Amino acid sequence: MSHSKKIPVAIVGASGYAGEDLVRLLLGHPDADLVAITSRQYAGQTLAQVFPKFSHFPKAKALRFTEPNAELLAKDAEVVFLALPHGVAAEFAVPLLQLGCKVIDLSADFRVKSAETYKEFYAHDHPAPELLAKSVYGLPEAYRNEIRNATLVACRGCYPTSILLPTLPLLREKLIQSNGIIADSLSGVSGAGRKVELDYLFAECNESMRPYGVPKHRHLSEIEQELSKAAGATVTIQFTPHLIPVNRGILTTLYLQPTDLNVEKHGERVAACYQKAYAQEPFIRILEGKALPDTKNVVGTNFLELAWRVDPRTKRLIVMSAEDNIVKGTSGQAIQCFNILSNLSETTGLY
Amino acid sequence: MSHSKKIPVAIVGASGYAGEDLVRLLLGHPDADLVAITSRQYAGQTLAQVFPKFSHFPKAKALRFTEPNAELLAKDAEVVFLALPHGVAAEFAVPLLQLGCKVIDLSADFRVKSAETYKEFYAHDHPAPELLAKSVYGLPEAYRNEIRNATLVACRGCYPTSILLPTLPLLREKLIQSNGIIADSLSGVSGAGRKVELDYLFAECNESMRPYGVPKHRHLSEIEQELSKAAGATVTIQFTPHLIPVNRGILTTLYLQPTDLNVEKHGERVAACYQKAYAQEPFIRILEGKALPDTKNVVGTNFLELAWRVDPRTKRLIVMSAEDNIVKGTSGQAIQCFNILSNLSETTGLY
Amino acid sequence: MSHSKKIPVAIVGASGYAGEDLVRLLLGHPDADLVAITSRQYAGQTLAQVFPKFSHFPKAKALRFTEPNAELLAKDAEVVFLALPHGVAAEFAVPLLQLGCKVIDLSADFRVKSAETYKEFYAHDHPAPELLAKSVYGLPEAYRNEIRNATLVACRGCYPTSILLPTLPLLREKLIQSNGIIADSLSGVSGAGRKVELDYLFAECNESMRPYGVPKHRHLSEIEQELSKAAGATVTIQFTPHLIPVNRGILTTLYLQPTDLNVEKHGERVAACYQKAYAQEPFIRILEGKALPDTKNVVGTNFLELAWRVDPRTKRLIVMSAEDNIVKGTSGQAIQCFNILSNLSETTGLY
Amino acid sequence: MSHSKKIPVAIVGASGYAGEDLVRLLLGHPDADLVAITSRQYAGQTLAQVFPKFSHFPKAKALRFTEPNAELLAKDAEVVFLALPHGVAAEFAVPLLQLGCKVIDLSADFRVKSAETYKEFYAHDHPAPELLAKSVYGLPEAYRNEIRNATLVACRGCYPTSILLPTLPLLREKLIQSNGIIADSLSGVSGAGRKVELDYLFAECNESMRPYGVPKHRHLSEIEQELSKAAGATVTIQFTPHLIPVNRGILTTLYLQPTDLNVEKHGERVAACYQKAYAQEPFIRILEGKALPDTKNVVGTNFLELAWRVDPRTKRLIVMSAEDNIVKGTSGQAIQCFNILSNLSETTGLY
Repeated sequence: MSHSKKIPVAIVGASGYAGEDLVRLLLGHPDADLVAITSRQYAGQTLAQVFPKFSHFPKAKALRFTEPNAELLAKDAEVVFLALPHGVAAEFAVPLLQLGCKVIDLSADFRVKSAETYKEFYAHDHPAPELLAKSVYGLPEAYRNEIRNATLVACRGCYPTSILLPTLPLLREKLIQSNGIIADSLSGVSGAGRKVELDYLFAECNESMRPYGVPKHRHLSEIEQELSKAAGATVTIQFTPHLIPVNRGILTTLYLQPTDLNVEKHGERVAACYQKAYAQEPFIRILEGKALPDTKNVVGTNFLELAWRVDPRTKRLIVMSAEDNIVKGTSGQAIQCFNILSNLSETTGLY
Repeated sequence: MSHSKKIPVAIVGASGYAGEDLVRLLLGHPDADLVAITSRQYAGQTLAQVFPKFSHFPKAKALRFTEPNAELLAKDAEVVFLALPHGVAAEFAVPLLQLGCKVIDLSADFRVKSAETYKEFYAHDHPAPELLAKSVYGLPEAYRNEIRNATLVACRGCYPTSILLPTLPLLREKLIQSNGIIADSLSGVSGAGRKVELDYLFAECNESMRPYGVPKHRHLSEIEQELSKAAGATVTIQFTPHLIPVNRGILTTLYLQPTDLNVEKHGERVAACYQKAYAQEPFIRILEGKALPDTKNVVGTNFLELAWRVDPRTKRLIVMSAEDNIVKGTSGQAIQCFNILSNLSETTGLY
Repeated sequence: MSHSKKIPVAIVGASGYAGEDLVRLLLGHPDADLVAITSRQYAGQTLAQVFPKFSHFPKAKALRFTEPNAELLAKDAEVVFLALPHGVAAEFAVPLLQLGCKVIDLSADFRVKSAETYKEFYAHDHPAPELLAKSVYGLPEAYRNEIRNATLVACRGCYPTSILLPTLPLLREKLIQSNGIIADSLSGVSGAGRKVELDYLFAECNESMRPYGVPKHRHLSEIEQELSKAAGATVTIQFTPHLIPVNRGILTTLYLQPTDLNVEKHGERVAACYQKAYAQEPFIRILEGKALPDTKNVVGTNFLELAWRVDPRTKRLIVMSAEDNIVKGTSGQAIQCFNILSNLSETTGLY
Repeated sequence: MSHSKKIPVAIVGASGYAGEDLVRLLLGHPDADLVAITSRQYAGQTLAQVFPKFSHFPKAKALRFTEPNAELLAKDAEVVFLALPHGVAAEFAVPLLQLGCKVIDLSADFRVKSAETYKEFYAHDHPAPELLAKSVYGLPEAYRNEIRNATLVACRGCYPTSILLPTLPLLREKLIQSNGIIADSLSGVSGAGRKVELDYLFAECNESMRPYGVPKHRHLSEIEQELSKAAGATVTIQFTPHLIPVNRGILTTLYLQPTDLNVEKHGERVAACYQKAYAQEPFIRILEGKALPDTKNVVGTNFLELAWRVDPRTKRLIVMSAEDNIVKGTSGQAIQCFNILSNLSETTGLY
């Protein structure tokens, strides 16, 4: 299944945490050839100079960061990853697509299908609304076929991944009510990106636990869009993110209301639903027995692990998921999408 | 208001995290005289030998850990703190009370008023059911008058503190529905006590986030008892604790359903309710403006801080609280109760 | 020994980590009255607004941060603490002293007696060389009498405290050679101050251990000045600081060469030397038996704990010390100096 | 260079941190076939049950932990890794070697060539002194040829790796004096293994920095053996390990005395020496410019990174190294040795 010829790829914005992790994954990817990396801050320096830890890779001393330039990128690369802030990403996506590249965007620019919703949550006009219909939401577990033929993949956010994967199959099979969903999430500090702000200093985060962005976090826009699609009805959820002193990881606890109040039977149906949806998925691990998700078991990997309990006292279904916010939440999912649209084995470079 | 004569006190089980913190607070307490500390493990050693950090206190070199013995304790101490596991605590409470001591128990033995509920949650018969009617639940913010006259105070658990203080006034004033309450809590690892188990090793906890005890944690028994009392109806809640890599602190996020769906008005009523209930409370800090609770602001203190938001999208009320699980959650609240029943200023030794 | 009237004090630069900790200690100090706090960034806001955790102190809602102004400060305060960067501190010290205030400076401006050495290490001319002769080095264990009569105290740096206290008595009694001293130090991240720089982001520090400032850290200037004075000869030492993912604390390991190679006898002489020097010191804890220093035993306190071992294999003396870099290293030592020059009991507000 | 047939391998003691990491590396190794894993504690359970995180590997559900049995292991495996405590490892090495297996031992049993020294440091008679002459010290950078033909490899300890790699070339080329070497090391808590002891609880390690094992740590025996060999003279060093609250990593700072006191020239000779020794080494990264080692750059990898400074003030050479204590320090070096003695490319499964 592997290409005889490697696919030339580029990363725009390769010096943030997501970009750096993409570099790591692409350097180790047997079917990708990283031909260009851009960074305004580091333009002119080699990859080895900026990230000494990559210096054992043959190309680390030759590959230099450049200023981002769509025309130059399109000359060398077939697939371009955008690891840029929202708003800026769209500006590069437009010319790259016109020049024939496939674009895998890690920003929020093409996740929400409605330019109006985008404006409500991101507080500015959508920079390229004409592309919204074209983009595919980068959730392989839900849109594998669409990604295969996509030219623009909008990789989902880190929180949405941890919320959507546990809930979509349940909503589709009507095992839970579409109203009253609560998602309580904990994120490691790398989720804030390599942003030099007081709030993310070591001494401000260590020995601290705190909620933030309550009650209207931006990721709600894409989460509710996808939940609504699965439910066939408008879904509005409660979502509370918290900042936790770990480098990586998201742990989400979901509070859901079963449609069937026969607890024992409901448990069986949930088990069957997840088996059907995910038993063949290469990156979803359904925990058995007494095990509960723990981010330390998924950090550094593209796995999401999940477990659930039906509470006989409250008749509620509790589903818990753990993922690496940078890998499964960002760079790893992007590679998974890249593998799919490049017709490679989906786990290439990720196991 | 300060006694001319110091009150002689003793701690049974003074070598766990709660016991050690009680020692710290009592050594610094101007109106208490710590006359006895017990520990099976350290019997015979001085306080300074076991905890060098207390060695500058004059009595640290003279005070020795002893085997616990109710008769000897009762001879010297007027008030005895029990920092023992549940089940064991009751065994000491019985003779100490008979010998005329006041007992401040930090275990779960006397929190739940029903011996039956106790058995359901703690899996053994209650060791002294005849004392249940006599014990007072150690929540000064709710039972200040009862504590003043109590001889047996059952200090509440660390999670219950973080859940009850934000919810009781709302339930009493019927500002929230009594059903459907969800409490999502994060705890530092000291909450597990000085227990030498694999799960609490540094390398198992650090860079890890995980739920545990889902869905039926023991603290539910006392939480639901107190919520039911406040609501005037049987309350069953959802409670999910998580283990987080910090030494100390509990952060609780509560999902509540307002009785009044007029969001703006509801917000005003919540604000008024908390003002009325807590403006005069010495250890509750209601955050204003954009501030949200952060455990780093309360660690090492007896404060609980809280903030709330009404979500106009979901019509739900989100209340968040932060406390030090050892101080406000355990040892500090015990001192607060001690101050009350000793007729001292409530903040003595705690500010 | 306590004043009938509280001493009015002010803090210039009260919003960094050191300044904030000074606020904490002065609010709790029974003989000090904090009358003014300055901060360019927070001018106009109350103490309670900037630091909600102090809001239970009666004056927190009344006391406002102001722009720093020497004349206004001198009107209200008798003693002024400067928690400012080096260079800037001297600019305030000059007028404050002229206006009759006593100044306790936490910066490096008046620690080094030689303006030339200052320039070598701090890379600019000394801003007020005429004050150097007047300033007293704020190490109570060495300069208690001088501090008592000082009007300008130059509080030592956090690393120097952890290095000087273990070595000065040994040098004075000629128990160690004055050449070849090596100090290997580990510091928590708060040591960098509340500086918003990439290097101090949580995700850059957590799960990281790294040396920095090798081989010529600025603190060498004051360390070597004091060691030379104690040795009666020019001392040049090796000093390597490391950044460690804890909030607070400095752990220093010293490698020293005994003058007497009879190991057993040397151990006895070291023990006697430390007993003589420190048995009566209120904030130095000499560990006995098998105990070794651990920063967790001193964090939040003004204590320095130390232990030593003579290695029979190498004939070297290893001395290890632990302190809180912010308290004993900065704010606590400043209060200790304040107590001395105000003729208060030295431990006031610090035990 | 890859085998047409995979090499069957086994791990004895596969449930500690080192064993678990060996499992991880061998599951991903293209030329090794993990055919047996033993663990008294988990015998009978599958790999997927004990370590759910490996469950996506095809064999995780089939491979079961067994009781260790040399005869059975020798039937299936050509190479056996021993991840056992010292003393116990030798008991397995003897029969496995007799049965024709190659043995890669991660314990301390065969590192020290002298049974007498072993007894001095490990406090019991050597269990198989007849094998000492046969064993090869598992430091590829020094003994690559010997490892190629070895049947018994004694993998070095985690601290020795971080100390020997920076010093051996300097000693061999007589660039540093062989006496007076000081190694100050910092280790993450996983270095203590999965040992359930009070000292390694999260709340005892987090926010703590402390030395231990001062002044005579067991690893001195092998360190001094190898340094002496390189120097051609008996070398006795000073070594102080510290416990630091990170999961993984060792950071060592070495204080060395140049033989040549011409600082500038010495720097050039050190640079040349390291270039000659390590420029072709696949897992040693010599940092350039201002960069200093940081454990976060090597964690999870088999790299050791190093940097050095000559201090013109003290004429001393400071060398700093960083490694992952579990990978380069233990399991990764074992795989590197395995690759060499199996005639595979040395980086197989490690890049």
